[in-house]
Order: sequence, then C-alpha cells, then structure tokens
Amino acid sequence: MAEIGTLVLLRHGQSTWNAENLFTGWVDVPLSEQGEGEARQGGQLLADAGLLPDVVHTSLLRRAISTANIALDAADRHWIPVKRDWRLNERHYGALQGKDKKQTLNEFGEEQFMLWRRSYDTPPPAIDPKDEWSQAGDARYANLGDQAPLTECLKDVVERLLPYWESEIVPDLRAGKTVLVAAHGNSLRALVKHLDGISDADIAGLNIPTGIPLRYDLTEELKPLKPGGEYLDPEAAKEAAAAVANQGR
Amino acid sequence: MAEIGTLVLLRHGQSTWNAENLFTGWVDVPLSEQGEGEARQGGQLLADAGLLPDVVHTSLLRRAISTANIALDAADRHWIPVKRDWRLNERHYGALQGKDKKQTLNEFGEEQFMLWRRSYDTPPPAIDPKDEWSQAGDARYANLGDQAPLTECLKDVVERLLPYWESEIVPDLRAGKTVLVAAHGNSLRALVKHLDGISDADIAGLNIPTGIPLRYDLTEELKPLKPGGEYLDPEAAKEAAAAVANQGR
Repeated sequence: MAEIGTLVLLRHGQSTWNAENLFTGWVDVPLSEQGEGEARQGGQLLADAGLLPDVVHTSLLRRAISTANIALDAADRHWIPVKRDWRLNERHYGALQGKDKKQTLNEFGEEQFMLWRRSYDTPPPAIDPKDEWSQAGDARYANLGDQAPLTECLKDVVERLLPYWESEIVPDLRAGKTVLVAAHGNSLRALVKHLDGISDADIAGLNIPTGIPLRYDLTEELKPLKPGGEYLDPEAAKEAAAAVANQGR
Repeated sequence: MAEIGTLVLLRHGQSTWNAENLFTGWVDVPLSEQGEGEARQGGQLLADAGLLPDVVHTSLLRRAISTANIALDAADRHWIPVKRDWRLNERHYGALQGKDKKQTLNEFGEEQFMLWRRSYDTPPPAIDPKDEWSQAGDARYANLGDQAPLTECLKDVVERLLPYWESEIVPDLRAGKTVLVAAHGNSLRALVKHLDGISDADIAGLNIPTGIPLRYDLTEELKPLKPGGEYLDPEAAKEAAAAVANQGR
C-alpha cells in the first residue's frame, strides 16, 4: 500500500467584509490587501518548510480561491492540479449574511449571538431567496437544486463536507500526495473535528488561525499522528487563534 | 447530440521577459503589471460579451495561469473547474531561452533569426540540461521523462498539442461547454492552424494578439463556423497583431 500523503489546511486571511466586521458566509467577497499578504506568507511558510503541495482543493468562494492562487504562486506550485467544490465553502450564515456583527450582538444579545456563532446545531434563521445577500440564481450553485442551503449550523457543514472528504481528498492522500485544502474557518473546523474526533461541545472552543498552514501527518486509518496537527509557525498560530476568538467584540 | 460548445482562446499579455525582449519559451517568468492589466481587460471583455467560461484549460506556466486567474476573477468565473497541462505550454525555445532577441538577431543575422522564430519545422539548437534556463529537474515535468523537449519548432508544438485537444478539450466542447484556453503565442497558433486548416507555409504570417479573447463557434465536425474566429475587440486585435509582428525589431 502506498504511504499516506500529508494533509495541509490553510484558512484564508482577512476579507474586505472581515475588515468591516460583517457576517459573510456564502457572500463572495474578495480578500483585503492584508488577506493577500496572509496568503503570500502562507505560501512562503510552505516553501520554507519544503512542504510542497501536489494538488489543491478549494471552495467555490473567491477568498479561498485567491488564497490558494497567491500561496501556491509564492511556493512556486501554481501549476499543480486544482479541484473546487461547494462542499468546502464557508458555513452559510443564513439571514445574518451581510449584517454587522456588532449590531447583531447588540440587537439579539450575547446569548443568542454566541448560539448562532458557536453552537453545533443551531443555525441562524434561513435567508430569504430575495435577500440581496442570497445566492439564489448564482450559476455556481445551479446544479445543487434543493440541496443548496439557506442557512447552516456547523453540524450541517460537517454533513455536507464529509462526502467530499471521503470521495475526493482521501483518494489523493491514499495516493501519497501532499494535499492542500484552502478553505474557511468553519469548513476547516468541520474537517478538524472529524480528524481529531472532537466532541460537539468542545468544537466551539476551537479557532483556526488564518494564513498559517496546519500540517497533519496521518496513519493508514487517516488518524492524526499528532492530535491537532502542527502549525508551520506555532508562535504566530497561538497569537492569531486568540485574536480570532475575540472577533465581533 | 448535445450542441457543440464555444471555444475561447486567450493569449497571455506582457511578461517581465517580454518587456526585456528575451526569448522565454518554458522559462517560468511572471506577468508584468501591463500583462496583469491585459488579463483583467480580457476578463472584462468576456463579461461584457456575456461569454462566460464553464471550464478553463491552461499550460503549466505562470504567465498563462495568472492570466486565467485574473481574467476569470474579473468575469466573476473564478470558481469554474481548471485543467492544466504541459501540452498547452509555449514552444520550448531550446538554447535561445534566456537570450536577448536583438543580440540574437545581430549575432546570427536576419535569415537565421526568422527561421528560428517563424519556420514551421526548424527548431533552435537544443538547450544544454545544465544551462541555467533549462527545465531539467523541474518537478512539474518529472513525469515526462524522455518526452520532455529540449527544443521545439512549431510542428513539434502541433504534434504534442493535438492529443490534448482531442482527449481533454474536445470532450468539454461536445458536452456543450464554453471552454476557455489560456495559453501562449505558439500553442495557440498551433491550435488555430489545426482548427482553420492553415498550411505549414501560411501559419508563419499569423500573429495572435494578447489579452483579447478569440471566440470560435464550431460545427459538429469541430470546424469553425467563421474562419479565423472572432475577436471580442476586433479593432484592438488588429492593432495588437501588427505590434506582435514587429517584436524583436
């Protein structure tokens, strides 16, 4: 049997809406200049570590796609095969998409706000298909039909992500490849929950920092050799995780 | 039978070595700022024409890959499937890679210079694998083995391009897709020669302008409905083709 390849997770950096403190979800906003810099830094960390992806998987959202493009260019791996899928998208934030985080906190209170942000199985209210931030009619989701979500909790993300993990990412790993997954806070939390066997309760406390590649070496049963994986820049990861935890405050 | 899709060719714009008037071939130089602007313009032309690619094919070279990324982002189609292959690469320029075009013209004379640049079947001398501009040892070509060229004439490009056309691009067209091919002066000339049935002698006079999408609508036999296709900006294409013809002078 071939050796199991290495999995590398990369969360996109600051988007223009992160900078404005708005709920984003499936709204397809670009990276800010800071976010582009984080992607370059992520690519440089890959190059410095000699951790060179053989294939990249991204969501269908610009901020993950640009992060992959910029990071791979910085690591001189811009030419590797690319796969994209909606199953790697950020969590759909429902009716909160386009809303200001601080205003939402003030309007609904701390308890409801944190339930929407961090509970495992409570989605925000569904978005109205006529809402200006709905993805109704977006060509990239046309083939999903009724499967296209109008809101999601993290549990929903786990459920739609795992079939893609099994059918598309695992075969690349079993072929011995170094696999880069460039995606989002919640799609990567869903994946890490699965890999590390984190409970529904404990996943709330896990924050993945942006722009710092997270490396998982795996057993043949696809279990992490080292729980939680290893950040290529552990010091920066620690600081960044703390900053993410304070988002929206 | 499904309707035949639309083929759109896009030649990358100015690279840093175009700007310095050096032979490039397989040397993986980036776009210049001007070249990035040409890519954005190409994407804007696609968007303005409502000609929205369903899939993109690129070479393994950064200047075509970046052109595709930038143009698709500008046309809001950054999320479509991507396929990359060395068979779409620029012509390998052999021992001329890295050489100044004007110096080469002065050293070898007009006749030899034009033979290397424009004859159908006379390749430049092979590059020494130890040459600083050789691709020996480049990971992206490792699986080619002896098939990796050390120099190419346009005839060689036609011969290595057509299997990819048949096996990867034609099936996308037969599936009714709008197919963007983001590539290079000579790989696109090779494709146009095949599509339009241009003779070995006449292809020397064909220059494809950069940054302007060239649209081919095709019959079921994959023959162009309109010979030569249609540029999305015909006036600019005419001016640009004239400029390309004067390169290296």
